[in-house]
Amino acid sequence: MSDPTLERDTALRGRARAVIPGGMYGHQNATLLPEGFPQYFAEGEGCRVRDVDGNEYIDFMCSYGPILLGHRHPAVEEAVRDQLARGDCFNGPGEAMVELAERLVERVDHADWALFQKNGTDATTLCVTVARAATGRSKVLVAAGAYHGAAPWCTPIPAGVVAEDRANVATFPYNDLTGLREAADAAGDDLAAVLVSPLKHDVFVDEELVDPAFARGLRALCDERGALLLLDEVRAGLRMGRGGSWEALGVAPDLSAWSKALANGYPIAAVLGAEAAREAAAQVFSTGSFWFSALPMVAALATLAQAEREDAHARVVHAGERFRAGLAEQSARHDLSLRQSGPPQMPMLLFDDDPQFEIGRAFTAAAARRGVYLHPYHNLFLCAAHDDASIDAALERTDLAFRDARAARPATRGAPCSR
Amino acid sequence: MSDPTLERDTALRGRARAVIPGGMYGHQNATLLPEGFPQYFAEGEGCRVRDVDGNEYIDFMCSYGPILLGHRHPAVEEAVRDQLARGDCFNGPGEAMVELAERLVERVDHADWALFQKNGTDATTLCVTVARAATGRSKVLVAAGAYHGAAPWCTPIPAGVVAEDRANVATFPYNDLTGLREAADAAGDDLAAVLVSPLKHDVFVDEELVDPAFARGLRALCDERGALLLLDEVRAGLRMGRGGSWEALGVAPDLSAWSKALANGYPIAAVLGAEAAREAAAQVFSTGSFWFSALPMVAALATLAQAEREDAHARVVHAGERFRAGLAEQSARHDLSLRQSGPPQMPMLLFDDDPQFEIGRAFTAAAARRGVYLHPYHNLFLCAAHDDASIDAALERTDLAFRDARAARPATRGAPCSR
Repeated sequence: MSDPTLERDTALRGRARAVIPGGMYGHQNATLLPEGFPQYFAEGEGCRVRDVDGNEYIDFMCSYGPILLGHRHPAVEEAVRDQLARGDCFNGPGEAMVELAERLVERVDHADWALFQKNGTDATTLCVTVARAATGRSKVLVAAGAYHGAAPWCTPIPAGVVAEDRANVATFPYNDLTGLREAADAAGDDLAAVLVSPLKHDVFVDEELVDPAFARGLRALCDERGALLLLDEVRAGLRMGRGGSWEALGVAPDLSAWSKALANGYPIAAVLGAEAAREAAAQVFSTGSFWFSALPMVAALATLAQAEREDAHARVVHAGERFRAGLAEQSARHDLSLRQSGPPQMPMLLFDDDPQFEIGRAFTAAAARRGVYLHPYHNLFLCAAHDDASIDAALERTDLAFRDARAARPATRGAPCSR
Repeated sequence: MSDPTLERDTALRGRARAVIPGGMYGHQNATLLPEGFPQYFAEGEGCRVRDVDGNEYIDFMCSYGPILLGHRHPAVEEAVRDQLARGDCFNGPGEAMVELAERLVERVDHADWALFQKNGTDATTLCVTVARAATGRSKVLVAAGAYHGAAPWCTPIPAGVVAEDRANVATFPYNDLTGLREAADAAGDDLAAVLVSPLKHDVFVDEELVDPAFARGLRALCDERGALLLLDEVRAGLRMGRGGSWEALGVAPDLSAWSKALANGYPIAAVLGAEAAREAAAQVFSTGSFWFSALPMVAALATLAQAEREDAHARVVHAGERFRAGLAEQSARHDLSLRQSGPPQMPMLLFDDDPQFEIGRAFTAAAARRGVYLHPYHNLFLCAAHDDASIDAALERTDLAFRDARAARPATRGAPCSR
């Protein structure tokens, strides 16, 4: 098999270096990925995407989360085309906004109201601001090492961040009630909120499901201290469950932040909140030039309806389990110790004895060359369009990718080595 | 003439009160507008929009700025439909991103590179963060009373804002070099940047064009202090000129923030920057789930190309001047002292002796009932689809609206009164 060409991609990267700082930025910056990963994409359908050179990939990143039903799902696209024929952005929202708020309030147990934005960072920032308005307090606790956004108060990269941006943010260890209590004690009577993701899903490390006792203890602590519990559903929302990700645990947040999968790829975010925070939410000035646009709202309505119709949640879980089982069998056969952590809908694939991700990079690069788009150190995202045939087609290729990675494995492996 | 019905609009507002805090939020909250203004919109074409009850309006808000060429301009819609047939949101951008960065760098004199976001607030916040990364300093000066965004550091509403959010933000009076210098002196050697809009365009007060001597003095001060000059083009960009709004003055910012009109209504924002800030821009973590989406980028390319093709800037200026002249004649004839400030492309209409905007509310409510969408205290936005026939049709209706407002004018007017 000859390697696919990335000629057009390479040319575009060259042009980009002249007019985009660093050539690219943010979480979609492919210069950080191994050679063989494309930067620029041309089209997609179902669970398959095509890069600008015409190479096709079975897509296990799903645009880093937004694609829940598959690329260009007909039910969503039809709603989008209908709205486009009338327009998108006016002096006020369309009636889809009211209907979307109603559907989300019906669907997510803790929610009595909704506000809409564009990005995950908009939603988590608004949660914090509403919590401060509701409590009159300043301090916010977040789980250490957990990624929450790209604004100065929550970015994982320090460039351009000043001390005051983080002055009211303190951390606690995920799933550690004792550590949480110590952080809350340090915040004292100025604790406005605790912001937490439904599972620990950071780059570079194994995912960690929430300990139900931790979730319940967190809820009790917030109640005891008069602080709000904010659930960051941006990455997990609609993949971990039909409604809120902690509903199965019986733990209800006061506010939750949603984005990625809400509209199957169209740009929207939402804050959902409980009655007690409604007045504070009405006082905070939240707005954006395109936050009222109709197109992503009709896309979200279609996504929610279609997800029910086809039981997307069960389909995504099934696809993830099938992929996981196949990868486990293959990696064992190729004598590569693959660790699969997190839920099957959004699994993390890491290798033992691979501190620099060399095996992971070799494996995912080989997979990309063979038409399977994975990631060396970010969790993957399954979608409802990953039917059994697609999973099996992907597994045929990952089998070869494991073989390639086995061949490329650093020579020191097998012998003890100091790390 | 019987008043148009807003029956469906009223029913939607009722439903919204149950599931949206305060019934609506942000700059498109119609509960703050006079009775007669619709909240919910159904469709638009050219300079006309239709609300959910089927009432048609000649639109002088243009979605609060985004609509530059007219609603659903065929050239933009064609590009959007083409892209939709291939998809919008993938694991990386489409090649339109590189082309858009190239076009903006060509078109805007001071720009050597571009970064893309979704909202004006994203862009202004990123400008500040890049300036801090570039200088290693903290303090930012903004013009007092000028609206800059909706994040805690820049929102005009204090709910949920804590002291640290504003600890590094100080103000100066627009167009006042002495005041600017005093504010810069107070910031001392910690001055990272001055953020300023190309003209003063705040709600409730007359617009004010920039004094060229102020703009040049500001540039000199930034150079002298080693601070960056950040130009907030979010509202004015592409309406004040073909490229940057201060190019005619010969004053180049280091960074500029763009959004609203860039893609004729599709959701995008951009930071454009000079070479000296490129390295800092590459270090800052800027990202969002939908910041790489192709659809608004092809819409922006089509908008820029079409704006050139039809000389949109000249058309918008011409439309604004024709509207302004008609309104001036009418208001004088109706003995209402209308003040029209700012550039004709984005004028502010306020009345003398109207501290509570009662005359303004009566006038704009009457205009809305007659099918002309204005605003009682926010600047208007003209677009290239406001041809002479549309302006004249609007003026026929505003003539009647002035008559209505004259009849509704508070009885005290005419006699001296204490305010």
